[in-house]
Amino acid sequence: MSETSLKDRASNYFGKLQKEIVAGLEVFEPRIHFQSHLWERPGGGGGESRILSGGKIFEKAGVNLSLVHGDLPSAIQQKLNCKSAEFFATGISLVLHPFSPKIPTVHANFRYFEQPDRAWFGGGVDLTPYVYAEEDFMHFHGVLKEACNTYRSGVYAKFKKECDTYFFIPHRNETRGVGGIFFDYQSEDLEGFFKFVQKCGNSFLKAYAPIVERNKDLSFSEREKKFQLLRRGRYVEFNLIYDRGTLFGLQTRGNIESILMSLPPVVHYDWSPDMEVTPSEKKLMESFRTPRDWI
Amino acid sequence: MSETSLKDRASNYFGKLQKEIVAGLEVFEPRIHFQSHLWERPGGGGGESRILSGGKIFEKAGVNLSLVHGDLPSAIQQKLNCKSAEFFATGISLVLHPFSPKIPTVHANFRYFEQPDRAWFGGGVDLTPYVYAEEDFMHFHGVLKEACNTYRSGVYAKFKKECDTYFFIPHRNETRGVGGIFFDYQSEDLEGFFKFVQKCGNSFLKAYAPIVERNKDLSFSEREKKFQLLRRGRYVEFNLIYDRGTLFGLQTRGNIESILMSLPPVVHYDWSPDMEVTPSEKKLMESFRTPRDWI
Repeated sequence: MSETSLKDRASNYFGKLQKEIVAGLEVFEPRIHFQSHLWERPGGGGGESRILSGGKIFEKAGVNLSLVHGDLPSAIQQKLNCKSAEFFATGISLVLHPFSPKIPTVHANFRYFEQPDRAWFGGGVDLTPYVYAEEDFMHFHGVLKEACNTYRSGVYAKFKKECDTYFFIPHRNETRGVGGIFFDYQSEDLEGFFKFVQKCGNSFLKAYAPIVERNKDLSFSEREKKFQLLRRGRYVEFNLIYDRGTLFGLQTRGNIESILMSLPPVVHYDWSPDMEVTPSEKKLMESFRTPRDWI
Repeated sequence: MSETSLKDRASNYFGKLQKEIVAGLEVFEPRIHFQSHLWERPGGGGGESRILSGGKIFEKAGVNLSLVHGDLPSAIQQKLNCKSAEFFATGISLVLHPFSPKIPTVHANFRYFEQPDRAWFGGGVDLTPYVYAEEDFMHFHGVLKEACNTYRSGVYAKFKKECDTYFFIPHRNETRGVGGIFFDYQSEDLEGFFKFVQKCGNSFLKAYAPIVERNKDLSFSEREKKFQLLRRGRYVEFNLIYDRGTLFGLQTRGNIESILMSLPPVVHYDWSPDMEVTPSEKKLMESFRTPRDWI
């Protein structure tokens, strides 16, 4: 029986998922399309970024596919404790920044990493809201939990906790949002885990699209918009100071624009902003400081 | 003859300089004042931030004074190759973000750092313009060169080069602006070097104020404003990813708002912006990619 290699199947799946997600998001944007930007990595490989700017719903949205290979820089080799510099990595990475503060920002990333002597999956899905909307948070986590349960019980609780730990901004003592799931260096049971990754990937639209649908026609106040612009600053702080994927991309000389497409389109940095002006903000900030179980 | 310690004289000088600079900047803002924010550092010491927001000229301006002491976190001890964790640091740090793209952003920082077995000065002054204005760049560098020459010939060339090296954004392959001077770990001839630091500090207003004066009444186009908002994104990238002072502050649990007051008030991150639309932008970007001698 001739089997295609895991790296081929993983990259094929990520490519298919990119198309599906782009199509699912374009439903909300009848007038404009995601543009395609192909890029090559000087050290080997490349990718395709699908980008939408100035949409009715999405102020900035990027759904990136990458297949890169070559040699790791020595700093990363040390960090990963590698025997070999040789690597192959493929993944899908998306960040959606809606214009309305009533619709949360969302991030998802799934990746497969291979070296001559080992291989692993990593990934995550997390939600960054700007208003407190318990029903949305419960729905989002509920869909992710369902995907997790098809793999193994207890996995959701574990990966939910890892998400709260990973998307934490130490200097602010708060999380980036209301979390989701996160996992990395998953090297055991690669075939089984690949099925799980596909479950998660296929759940993305189911987790996020209903939240867009439910909130897209709601009006919002000037203060709600201002709060979003300020909170987007925290998103930048996390991504540029702490995010492993961003720093890995910059250090391996990936495509700069694709790596930094995660940054919000417009950001405000006020001096010492008061983030707890309204009751909704108070509740939201509380959930960023003390991660909660949403299910 | 009883001499006050260098650390007392340094912190006194930085305090005096803060007052002078604030007074010099308030001349441009007859209607509003810099607010004073006192803060304490849990591990020892504290500081005073003087902040102005929403001025006619300065959209956001911060002139911070700090005197901190205590024990360095182990990560920093390793980096500095310290024998002792004990440290004392005092400094002044300022970043001014004008509203008009015709007026450049400016940064200056002078600091004195002491441990039981060693002490050093560090500092820098650098200009980040949004339009190409050779006369301004020449004036700025000219004033800094004059200050440097009072210390020792050749110092300007050396510190100018160090500035171009330090304020470099590797992933963009460009400098943060047109530079100025930068120095760090200056532990020899501390008394002489303190005189030099004072010369530099006292030159700040002379270097920057005439540039504000010359450009403050000029009109600007929508494109010039947009270019500024995009370039401010690079300022954030440098400060959050590479700036030693910012990362030191965050790691030593300094006052977050004072550390991050350097971030511009409003920033745009477009997908893959074209930074070379006008002839002025082309010339400016060229000078960011290939640092020039301005004198």
